[in-house]
Amino acid sequence: MSRLDKQIAFLTEADRLKTVLRATTLCDGSRIENSAEHSWHIALYAMVLAEHAEEDVDVLKILKMLLLHDLVEIDAGDAPVFGDHDEEALAAKEAAAAERIFGLLPDDQAKTFRAIWEEFEANETPEAEFAKSIDRLQPPIQNLQSGGGSWTQFDVTLSRFEAHIGPKINRGAPGIWEWLRPQVAAFFNARL
Amino acid sequence: MSRLDKQIAFLTEADRLKTVLRATTLCDGSRIENSAEHSWHIALYAMVLAEHAEEDVDVLKILKMLLLHDLVEIDAGDAPVFGDHDEEALAAKEAAAAERIFGLLPDDQAKTFRAIWEEFEANETPEAEFAKSIDRLQPPIQNLQSGGGSWTQFDVTLSRFEAHIGPKINRGAPGIWEWLRPQVAAFFNARL
Repeated sequence: MSRLDKQIAFLTEADRLKTVLRATTLCDGSRIENSAEHSWHIALYAMVLAEHAEEDVDVLKILKMLLLHDLVEIDAGDAPVFGDHDEEALAAKEAAAAERIFGLLPDDQAKTFRAIWEEFEANETPEAEFAKSIDRLQPPIQNLQSGGGSWTQFDVTLSRFEAHIGPKINRGAPGIWEWLRPQVAAFFNARL
Repeated sequence: MSRLDKQIAFLTEADRLKTVLRATTLCDGSRIENSAEHSWHIALYAMVLAEHAEEDVDVLKILKMLLLHDLVEIDAGDAPVFGDHDEEALAAKEAAAAERIFGLLPDDQAKTFRAIWEEFEANETPEAEFAKSIDRLQPPIQNLQSGGGSWTQFDVTLSRFEAHIGPKINRGAPGIWEWLRPQVAAFFNARL
């Protein structure tokens, strides 16, 4: 196989991410979102919101992270943040998926893409922290718009939301968390 | 409205791109692709294929172009490349859409995003030429995989494909066109 054959084989395999369903719906609640369109949406989020990152960030690296961060779901599926799953088993499944899927690329690119994904997962650089914050920010925005969405499905309460999601958004984008928190609180309080 | 209010209003409006349908199907032919997941896919294409650009290119600018290039379709719809449409009327519709949709952002970002979209549309910089090539490359890859796809729908022949699509891919990514052309020719010839 030529270099281009391998690159296109990877891009063709990536097409399957359009069939991986998430827990979140579109803003209008009309249907469940898939992981490919979600990946597009949060890359656009990062373009618009990069100025709110906690530290100076490399936007190109963040966009690359967000474009490929969910590809492992082609084999491992989407694990909703409020769902039950065995973290260790999921991590093993995702590592095997990364090996197979990035392994379709020419060797040098396979290594580069794998390293970008691992940096995202490790969540230790400013870029990974901001990218993770954005990945956690988009679902509550969709849920506020649709009137509950995945919060309703998983019986999420305000205190669970604040405990599970708050620290993750706050870590990379504290100004956005400060903006979001009262809106989510108002939403849950209006339901009581 | 605060700066963040405006930014999130734009990102929420952008969600509607997930409901804009294209002519192309997924690689497995199971359903029509939407413009949001298409935008993700071609941004990933650009990440993988940037080395094949005709000139040295700024990958960050290309990713930004591809992430926002279809947003005008929220108001103007997708115009399939082999479909019939009034180019002038479409351009006017898209310009009005850009004014409205990018206008949801804070003024400085509205100007920046509009300028990126106009650079893409003008197709005169190395980044725009490569981005346009990639936008034209992904549908034939999907059609080869699905066994015809939008080519069947629009009764496309090899000569129409070569006349309409060839120059567009070739302009920004001649090495990719050289790789693709014989595969498309073999596909059409096998149908005769």
